[in-house]
Amino acid sequence: MHHKFAKRASSVTSSDMRIILTAGERPELISLAGGLPAPELFPIDALKAASEAVLTEEGAASLQYSATEGYTPLRKIIIGRMDAIGIPVELNQVMITSGSQQAIDLTGRLLIDEGDTIICESPTYLAAINAFKTYDANFVEVEMDEDGMIMEILEKRLQENPNAKFIYTIPDFQNPSGRTLSLERRKRMIELANRYDVLILEDNPYGAIRFSGTAIPPIKHFDTEGRVIYLSTFSKIFAPGLRLGWICADEVFIEKYIGLKESADMHSDGFAQRLTAKYMELNDIEAHIEKIKAVYKERCTAMVACIEQYFPNDISYVEPEGGLFIWVELPASMDSRKIALACLENNVAVIPGAAFFANKAQTNTLRLNFSNTSEARIIEGMKRIGEVLHRELNEITITAGTTTR
Amino acid sequence: MHHKFAKRASSVTSSDMRIILTAGERPELISLAGGLPAPELFPIDALKAASEAVLTEEGAASLQYSATEGYTPLRKIIIGRMDAIGIPVELNQVMITSGSQQAIDLTGRLLIDEGDTIICESPTYLAAINAFKTYDANFVEVEMDEDGMIMEILEKRLQENPNAKFIYTIPDFQNPSGRTLSLERRKRMIELANRYDVLILEDNPYGAIRFSGTAIPPIKHFDTEGRVIYLSTFSKIFAPGLRLGWICADEVFIEKYIGLKESADMHSDGFAQRLTAKYMELNDIEAHIEKIKAVYKERCTAMVACIEQYFPNDISYVEPEGGLFIWVELPASMDSRKIALACLENNVAVIPGAAFFANKAQTNTLRLNFSNTSEARIIEGMKRIGEVLHRELNEITITAGTTTR
Repeated sequence: MHHKFAKRASSVTSSDMRIILTAGERPELISLAGGLPAPELFPIDALKAASEAVLTEEGAASLQYSATEGYTPLRKIIIGRMDAIGIPVELNQVMITSGSQQAIDLTGRLLIDEGDTIICESPTYLAAINAFKTYDANFVEVEMDEDGMIMEILEKRLQENPNAKFIYTIPDFQNPSGRTLSLERRKRMIELANRYDVLILEDNPYGAIRFSGTAIPPIKHFDTEGRVIYLSTFSKIFAPGLRLGWICADEVFIEKYIGLKESADMHSDGFAQRLTAKYMELNDIEAHIEKIKAVYKERCTAMVACIEQYFPNDISYVEPEGGLFIWVELPASMDSRKIALACLENNVAVIPGAAFFANKAQTNTLRLNFSNTSEARIIEGMKRIGEVLHRELNEITITAGTTTR
Repeated sequence: MHHKFAKRASSVTSSDMRIILTAGERPELISLAGGLPAPELFPIDALKAASEAVLTEEGAASLQYSATEGYTPLRKIIIGRMDAIGIPVELNQVMITSGSQQAIDLTGRLLIDEGDTIICESPTYLAAINAFKTYDANFVEVEMDEDGMIMEILEKRLQENPNAKFIYTIPDFQNPSGRTLSLERRKRMIELANRYDVLILEDNPYGAIRFSGTAIPPIKHFDTEGRVIYLSTFSKIFAPGLRLGWICADEVFIEKYIGLKESADMHSDGFAQRLTAKYMELNDIEAHIEKIKAVYKERCTAMVACIEQYFPNDISYVEPEGGLFIWVELPASMDSRKIALACLENNVAVIPGAAFFANKAQTNTLRLNFSNTSEARIIEGMKRIGEVLHRELNEITITAGTTTR
């Protein structure tokens, strides 16, 4: 029998990353590989009460088919959250999605024709690359420094690619790099987008998880022309299992998104939407977020201290002010895929950075996650990585020494 | 500002159907338009207990990110249900989806390249047409009679379209026609698919809701070459709000589906999956389905009696043996869109059939839903439709009389 897959499906395979992520199920292994929130912080008891209330008060409605754009009270809660960070939106500018991954996918569906160019950070979010590839996008990368995407390079890329469809950016505590786009650059990005008539897809799953430094308004705050599509999610501040994210954009976009979502999955889980809205009604979500931030800050600080203590001197990293990740650059001669496999043998999982580049991989990079592991296990895991790094570095030095003889 | 939408998004707009469906929110209006299950049958108290148990026993896991292919115990429950209807499958042949709408969409993503041909019933499921159009499919329609797709026409279409990607069929109590593909034709469809080397997408959301006649094995039961992809859902037997469906297919397909779903929405709601599995563990789902069938049978019988009593003589319909819908063919001269709008004015909503044709609409057809309305309101609604039909028929007769003079 002939399996006639579509072109877009022919390259779909299990990734290296999945091998490392599933290895994380061995109990002796310490995984710093995933991007999971701390499950011990999930508000389980409060959810029991919210679930009981939803089923008692509106059980049938919560279990029935419902509107594609989402449950109105939850959309209103989102409007409040957006307003608080400087994005005033109306109800017809908000759509609920099945996690922000669906928002990314639907944006590809809305905007990308075969061969279209997307401008993205280097590195960028792996699952966004994969989603956009489904729609046959080409990627043009913009290098970053510790303040995020470099605007001079962005402008050059916009000049070279006058038909680019949109700039994809994760401005706060980026996945994977942990870097934050500076205030000046946010303003500059809007100026450039206006001048070169390009859309911006602002993907902001981590913004609410800032545990040090000063909050910077989102890019969309500076948008005067309705060219920023803003995505976020309840996954990092509440519970990713419920798969609820959202899109804020001008109505002309949201109308199209609704039509596309209807074809994709009709609507997001209505019970989960009501559960989330009810939780927000009965509880202080801000207090809950403060708890998350305190724990993540402690874990991040511990991980940074371990880098200083256990890692070789000639590596570099950016200490993030929020989010879930630290990005480590190893000496240029080191192959982080080899390091990641050696780490697995030493019972610690990390993600080699190469997967996070749309085109040209920097193979000496690692992404470390601090949100999903206790401080004690972070310390033990970082020691194990340190052992591998020192060993590999010695081997490289010895080999290099041998070669020059 | 220039809105650079992708080609596929340019045609996306709010449908006629949405206008009629949202009209259904006026309380004086009786809606026979949607395709909603009876909400009064949702097992709300049992779900309260299941929710409490899930959150107590595995709260953190249910709220965390989880495997793209779905929650294993729920996949095992599906294996049991598939086995009971003559489809033996292994765990690696089952993937959970966010409703069967996502299964349809992912199948488009897996199989359809721009311009590919899909063979479908005439009429067929509206939201499948829309999903496949997203992937730029062409449709070739096969006419039906009361036993479903006509096999002689199917063979002709396969000969005319040797590169057709798949046959899309809803064999049991089809949406919108209510028709069921006969046993002989199921066997014949497999023979034809094997001979012409084409895949079959068997979409079976309604099969479990058979309330009269004898069950017929699914098409996949007769599949010896792994060329049938089988879709179903918990929406009709349990709760559509939770958005849980599934795909059964050979592993070579499921592996690809998993990769595509990962890009589309990561995974389906893990809490909803555990809730559904826990409900099935603690309750007798078969007894629940029996209740649904008894109620739908009663409502279907009432609707059929009303057609006989209140509708003009020269209309035809098929009395379904299950599912949610009755399909009515009006005299060829009648435009059902006009009828549907006149019905709205008479405070009853129905769906004009034209929307359910991929290419060539039969504009004298109506779809009536009996699952979501009480017997008393069905009778009142059908009276109101009958009034409109008699009035329109008289007008047509008078107009025709005038013209011939």
